[in-house]
Amino acid sequence: MSDVKRPVLGVGLLGLGTVGQGVVRILEDRAADFEARLGRRLSVVAALVRDPAKSRERVPEHVRVTTDPMSVLTDPSVDIVMEVMGGIDPAGKLIRQALRMGKHVITANKALLADHGEEIFQTAREADRAVCFEAAVGGGIPIIQALRVGLAANRIVSISAILNGTCNFILTAMTRAGRDYGEVLAEAQKLGYAEADPTLDVDGTDTAHKLAVLVQVAFGRKVTTSEISRRGIDRLEAADIRFAGELGYVVKLLARARVRPEGLELRVAPTLVPKGSQLADISDAYNAIRVEGDAVGDTLFSGRGAGMLPTASAMVSDLIGLAVDPRFRVRQTEELWRPATNAIALVSPDEFRMRAYLRFQIPDRPGELAHLARILGENGISIASVIQHEPMADEREQASVPLVIMTHTATAGAMRLALDEIARTCRLPSEPVCLEVSGHTGRDD
Amino acid sequence: MSDVKRPVLGVGLLGLGTVGQGVVRILEDRAADFEARLGRRLSVVAALVRDPAKSRERVPEHVRVTTDPMSVLTDPSVDIVMEVMGGIDPAGKLIRQALRMGKHVITANKALLADHGEEIFQTAREADRAVCFEAAVGGGIPIIQALRVGLAANRIVSISAILNGTCNFILTAMTRAGRDYGEVLAEAQKLGYAEADPTLDVDGTDTAHKLAVLVQVAFGRKVTTSEISRRGIDRLEAADIRFAGELGYVVKLLARARVRPEGLELRVAPTLVPKGSQLADISDAYNAIRVEGDAVGDTLFSGRGAGMLPTASAMVSDLIGLAVDPRFRVRQTEELWRPATNAIALVSPDEFRMRAYLRFQIPDRPGELAHLARILGENGISIASVIQHEPMADEREQASVPLVIMTHTATAGAMRLALDEIARTCRLPSEPVCLEVSGHTGRDD
Repeated sequence: MSDVKRPVLGVGLLGLGTVGQGVVRILEDRAADFEARLGRRLSVVAALVRDPAKSRERVPEHVRVTTDPMSVLTDPSVDIVMEVMGGIDPAGKLIRQALRMGKHVITANKALLADHGEEIFQTAREADRAVCFEAAVGGGIPIIQALRVGLAANRIVSISAILNGTCNFILTAMTRAGRDYGEVLAEAQKLGYAEADPTLDVDGTDTAHKLAVLVQVAFGRKVTTSEISRRGIDRLEAADIRFAGELGYVVKLLARARVRPEGLELRVAPTLVPKGSQLADISDAYNAIRVEGDAVGDTLFSGRGAGMLPTASAMVSDLIGLAVDPRFRVRQTEELWRPATNAIALVSPDEFRMRAYLRFQIPDRPGELAHLARILGENGISIASVIQHEPMADEREQASVPLVIMTHTATAGAMRLALDEIARTCRLPSEPVCLEVSGHTGRDD
Repeated sequence: MSDVKRPVLGVGLLGLGTVGQGVVRILEDRAADFEARLGRRLSVVAALVRDPAKSRERVPEHVRVTTDPMSVLTDPSVDIVMEVMGGIDPAGKLIRQALRMGKHVITANKALLADHGEEIFQTAREADRAVCFEAAVGGGIPIIQALRVGLAANRIVSISAILNGTCNFILTAMTRAGRDYGEVLAEAQKLGYAEADPTLDVDGTDTAHKLAVLVQVAFGRKVTTSEISRRGIDRLEAADIRFAGELGYVVKLLARARVRPEGLELRVAPTLVPKGSQLADISDAYNAIRVEGDAVGDTLFSGRGAGMLPTASAMVSDLIGLAVDPRFRVRQTEELWRPATNAIALVSPDEFRMRAYLRFQIPDRPGELAHLARILGENGISIASVIQHEPMADEREQASVPLVIMTHTATAGAMRLALDEIARTCRLPSEPVCLEVSGHTGRDD
């Protein structure tokens, strides 16, 4: 694409699924507004699809539908390529080809950016083109530009975020109805809030991809997904959500990044968040990102994290940004995923500082609590609160009762050693549950 | 300022109060980071003050302090002028002079933009310079760039916002402690959360200034402060906050803009917001802006709305934006406060649609409720719920008892007619209280 203005700015779509159709729809519905603002028309001219016979409502006739990616990339009327096919291959290859052919690229592909951002941005720099990715994190929430532009004056201190709508939908339903994970997942699948194969959502991988992208933007630090300590919601039990509620907490799948003197702590885990804090109130498929900056203090950005129009909103906003001032976007691209220089170190998971929620099933006999408490104490973990109810009617026949302990802050390593010793010496009927706890008095850190 | 890069980008400050000193502090503390990112130094070279003898901690020696505005504006080492003096005159004149002398301008002056944005932006266009004003609304929250860039694909449908930290601090304290306005205001003044003369904050004027700025950015519509229907918190009584709580609401000073088929509804008023909704949970001096876009759906942006570093964060972020790409900011400036063309109409206040919270002090005798209900009904206002308690011990001697009515939606004009008729025919011992109610089930609209 030359930077000379032509009357039409042509878009080539790689993929014409839900989000791709959302892009087409916004560009059609708002064509006159955008043309009035930009002085030229934004138009989808070609779209790569797998099955050209499939019916696609509202895709106008002037969109050339093709199964040949090269026919999109080589189309001289395509100035900007929007990648909405997902996956690593061939998406990554096609994006790099598009850049080399002089097209700017807009993508929502967090998995690709997380693990292959460096190659893609290197190619963009060599080609003097822009890669825009507002849609990759938080759906329609404009968090990327907020971090890059609106909060530019700040040294970012921490990020705590709910980044996966499927998980948040499931957790909200489990919390409201006291129901089990499996049951709620099945319902979420029926309602379209969870994929047929929800693995990458519920095991925390998708959240880790998005955290990796945020870490690059906020801290200039390249991390691959494998470097992020992560745990999903797929083994969460209704009992723990109930006990957390009793203690004044809600369970959320949080992505967290925090700068400590030792370096950067990164993790994705189901986390107890104090009721009444902003992240605790983010329900259903909504996402939220809490950003703490040294000057601005706490800020929160929330909105719909996925879906046809919210994601398309972010992609078309990037498209308008490119139409208004492509050089600004090229300049932004130059600054990201640069070959590492003096990057901040990552703290190793054993050194993470955490408060823990622990649940043990203990034999209903004297001395068990004392024994557990002693082992925790010997490992430097002090107890903040304890719940042990008398067995309920339907539990009386059982040989064990739940004991819930909230700890003060300790290292994750100390916590692991204590739990190992407990497992070795206590012969509990089931493995203890250990969840992270965020913040004391309304803080989400 | 020529757009040729020089090794130092010089800033001239008009004003060196709290925010001005915050700007100096961020630029000093982060000098090396910014220089590494931008390839040149950002430095405050001169500052206009009223009293040069006053001690200013942490203002370094290289900042030339002067009482002569022209010596800042004509200083050839000043590329960008940051206005933090506030007020209309001379701030407006100095900003226009600075633009004519080729300086870009960054300002936090919402009062000036609200009522004189057109002249200032016209001058900027003629001079081909930028005016940046992220700090004018919501302190450190990057709402201006979010609306202009991150949500650019959207037709904005509504905005509901808490924009004045002083009012929100006072309302939060009144709600928590059940205390009266006067008492809480005195405390807020002691703590520095309210000015010695808090009039413009508590009467809603400051909130209306900020709403006028948001309306320009979100809807391209020029409105002056006088065109915004507004009411402050200064006559709010503890009793109404208590009754609102009983009904499941919190009282917030909301700025609201909503597009209806008839045009744009704009208002600033103490408003009942459902507990558990996002705006209800914004406490103390925090601000929040809820933006509904046609594609993105609901989004929320929150953070500290005022203070030295949050406001300076927004101003320095604008400064970095200007350093990275001044043309982008000039282009953004070109689009705002343009001479009106086909602007959306403003709905007249009588046509506003509203649900109301009404409190009457009624004589404790039969038939009063029936009479009031009949007048409301005759004016097309239907009742959603009623609270009338038996008089408490300390009220038994009084001749009147409180009656609280929540209505369904009606026009503000119908509400006014009904209240006029009630005042005429009922001889109530005091004027009825009428507050707006936002949203039904967690919606803030």
